[in-house]
Amino acid sequence: MQEEKSGGSAPALPPDGEFPAEAKNSVYAAIFGRRDVRSFRPETVPDDVLARILTAAHHAPSVGFMQPWDFLLVRSRELRGRIKELSDRERHAAAVFYDEPRRDRYLAMKLEGILDAPLNLCVTCDPTRGGPQVLGRNSIPETDVYSTCLAVQNLWLAARAEGVGVGWVSILRNAELREILGIPPHVIPVAYLCLGYPEGGFAEKPLLESNGWRERIDLDLLVRYETWHSQT
Amino acid sequence: MQEEKSGGSAPALPPDGEFPAEAKNSVYAAIFGRRDVRSFRPETVPDDVLARILTAAHHAPSVGFMQPWDFLLVRSRELRGRIKELSDRERHAAAVFYDEPRRDRYLAMKLEGILDAPLNLCVTCDPTRGGPQVLGRNSIPETDVYSTCLAVQNLWLAARAEGVGVGWVSILRNAELREILGIPPHVIPVAYLCLGYPEGGFAEKPLLESNGWRERIDLDLLVRYETWHSQT
Repeated sequence: MQEEKSGGSAPALPPDGEFPAEAKNSVYAAIFGRRDVRSFRPETVPDDVLARILTAAHHAPSVGFMQPWDFLLVRSRELRGRIKELSDRERHAAAVFYDEPRRDRYLAMKLEGILDAPLNLCVTCDPTRGGPQVLGRNSIPETDVYSTCLAVQNLWLAARAEGVGVGWVSILRNAELREILGIPPHVIPVAYLCLGYPEGGFAEKPLLESNGWRERIDLDLLVRYETWHSQT
Repeated sequence: MQEEKSGGSAPALPPDGEFPAEAKNSVYAAIFGRRDVRSFRPETVPDDVLARILTAAHHAPSVGFMQPWDFLLVRSRELRGRIKELSDRERHAAAVFYDEPRRDRYLAMKLEGILDAPLNLCVTCDPTRGGPQVLGRNSIPETDVYSTCLAVQNLWLAARAEGVGVGWVSILRNAELREILGIPPHVIPVAYLCLGYPEGGFAEKPLLESNGWRERIDLDLLVRYETWHSQT
């Protein structure tokens, strides 16, 4: 898959400085309009769209320009079936820890679209990429995985702009996932994603917010000044 | 700090579906034009701009809608001085592992703008946020930190659109950083960022690419099909 960048024919955006108001608003529209999508229509994501989304991911920042990510595209119905089964087991294992009525509510929610989505994508992190000495990774080795997460968010936002929905399936066990997909033991499956066109469009709010499972925290309560315990 | 969303007065963007070409290109312009910035002008980032950038971060996806992040704003010259000193020690410790001529090259690079930037920002992850049972976090507990990274990338892209540069300082030790900023032992300092208007604008390419430290990998080599070792 070749890199494919859009933006070349874009209206003049400043090489530095602030974007014009409309361009800025488009960036915010992607950020605020992005959703975790779990219901998909069956249409394939065209190759050029997919190439642009993956190119966006590949242009994420990475510690020491390490680019530790790989993109494993899974379309096989058989492989997806096995991963769906794994996810169902995990879902039921997690349910054991809820008390009623929360358990029933948890089990009733649609949490993933592994089989609905025409495309699954496992984004991995290879901690050996770039050899033993990666600039900036001496103090906090986990910055390899952090970089991979930044790539996922680039992908997620590019997908939103393309009208493509993305859902992150976190209810999976990495040991079994590695086995199903043949991922080497040292490589970390960071994100297992479902991609496709969303059934019913992009919701206005996250599901867990709109169904009252959990509330959005006031930003005010999350901003601290100078030191953790200061009261400014 | 109150939430501040732009995009309300944006040109009609589709609630679902693909963005119009110009809007899409603006999203890609932020993604491809984002840089790790290490040189800053002294001007302050205005409060309304900062509020929009933090609101963008706060609207990142998080496992189980956990929102595990806090945003610690550090402006104090004294605190930044101590963190700069910590970063210098780490930089020299890391240099020990390079052989010449790479060591000299490493030490000659400007890797952070802790003191130049008018604002430092530590984005943390609180693994206890939301109690012991967070939906979707049973199988892979690290998804709390992953969510925090997604917030960082939202912040980074919103900042780019605002013309604000962001640099991630990864050459720091968390134990000492916690001590300086009073961060509790269970809270993870995920990203220590410098924010401000970039001196000399946004570079066309990442520094480590343009100075030949490391090359960008062909996307082709990073895309795999169905299973890790397949040759499609």
